[in-house]
Amino acid sequence: MKKRPLILVTNDDGITAPGIRTLIEIMNEIGEVVVVAPDSPQSAMGHAITINSTLHCEKIIVTDGPQLEYSCSGTPADCVKLAVNELLGRKPDLCVSGINHGSNSSINVIYSGTMSAAMEAGIEGIPAIGFSLLDFNWNANFNPLRSFIKQITTEALTRGIPKDVVLNVNFPKLQEEEIKGIKICRQAKANWVEKFDKRTNPMGREYYWLTGSFVNQDRGEDTDEWALKEGYISIVPTQFDLTAHHSIQQLNTWNL
Amino acid sequence: MKKRPLILVTNDDGITAPGIRTLIEIMNEIGEVVVVAPDSPQSAMGHAITINSTLHCEKIIVTDGPQLEYSCSGTPADCVKLAVNELLGRKPDLCVSGINHGSNSSINVIYSGTMSAAMEAGIEGIPAIGFSLLDFNWNANFNPLRSFIKQITTEALTRGIPKDVVLNVNFPKLQEEEIKGIKICRQAKANWVEKFDKRTNPMGREYYWLTGSFVNQDRGEDTDEWALKEGYISIVPTQFDLTAHHSIQQLNTWNL
Repeated sequence: MKKRPLILVTNDDGITAPGIRTLIEIMNEIGEVVVVAPDSPQSAMGHAITINSTLHCEKIIVTDGPQLEYSCSGTPADCVKLAVNELLGRKPDLCVSGINHGSNSSINVIYSGTMSAAMEAGIEGIPAIGFSLLDFNWNANFNPLRSFIKQITTEALTRGIPKDVVLNVNFPKLQEEEIKGIKICRQAKANWVEKFDKRTNPMGREYYWLTGSFVNQDRGEDTDEWALKEGYISIVPTQFDLTAHHSIQQLNTWNL
Repeated sequence: MKKRPLILVTNDDGITAPGIRTLIEIMNEIGEVVVVAPDSPQSAMGHAITINSTLHCEKIIVTDGPQLEYSCSGTPADCVKLAVNELLGRKPDLCVSGINHGSNSSINVIYSGTMSAAMEAGIEGIPAIGFSLLDFNWNANFNPLRSFIKQITTEALTRGIPKDVVLNVNFPKLQEEEIKGIKICRQAKANWVEKFDKRTNPMGREYYWLTGSFVNQDRGEDTDEWALKEGYISIVPTQFDLTAHHSIQQLNTWNL
């Protein structure tokens, strides 16, 4: 790529989150950066889009770099749609989403606003990567990720991400020198076992908090969960064709 | 299955929507029915879950059948989590979601609250089916679907849905006698091309409505879009392992 690539940056933790601020700094070293991100946290929004209410979007005055920034009232997927179809003059060469404060490995990809933004870009034909750190702390240390994110992004721009595939990159919570390397993985078969914390409000009405514990039933050594536990960065190539192609033959034997 | 199966019914259009009321009637003929559905419309919510606010859930007094009903403040995925982990005494034998007012074929599966509820059940190990009618009208005619839904549900209970697969069933907007039959399909490769309708509010602030047109680039005659257009009911076996397994080898050649 001769001229500097146009890079769209978004996330689900909101435009002021330390994770996206770090990602913007890294992307400024690689290309021309436009940020279109939610004006408030949108975690666990899955692939929600706003169809029954209006969207607001404001250009932000930026003092920490050459990037353009827009703050939007919608979901992460809305931000990508708005960026691509309304705000950007041309199709971006890459969309990066994150750095998410928390894991998007394994089944978390389904609930992830970070990955929904990357998937939305992928659906629109834009190469896309979601980056997440296994640390929910707002003040997590993103510095150990910098060189790896630059390397993965540069390689993606040079080689090209496979068609209709979006990269889901997760980082273990480790110091840079402790990270063993990068593994290409499959999504581990795991799920959340929910526990609802039932309480009574001051007016006597019952309500719930959703809590849960993550259960990994997958013993494979080719999964994202395995890689992360062993101290590797995991990259799962992720697709939005959800067809279980291997089941079509079996279903054709049904009496329908 | 000797005893009557326990069937969890949910949707994304809200517990009062005509689509779910029809589905409850049909399921009452097949099994013991518990309804746990959103108290208000949750269309296009994708796989959102509620982690940063509280959930309310009220038992409803029912006069139109033997089913138990709960109305919940959360998303479709929340409803399934709450049903399975808090409200139901045992694991349901089946979860059905819908009947959605509008299409969930092709890429719409990604944005669909109806399918996110079914997928959530699938993730929790419960056989699950999402039903949708290609008619957004609140007063759509669901009667032509009744015998087909009963047939598909009975067959699913008898044969068993393949493991880690959720059925995405879409109905064309046709009279019963016009429906040609049922096809097992793959998800068509299509997407929405958005157009943002930009307006100015009475206070002079700009805002947007998200609109768009659906573009099907897929010429295959094995897709859901093809089947629906030809007058068939489409069933796509859908999975929540999003790994693009075929891309792992290619990504392993990257310099990482």
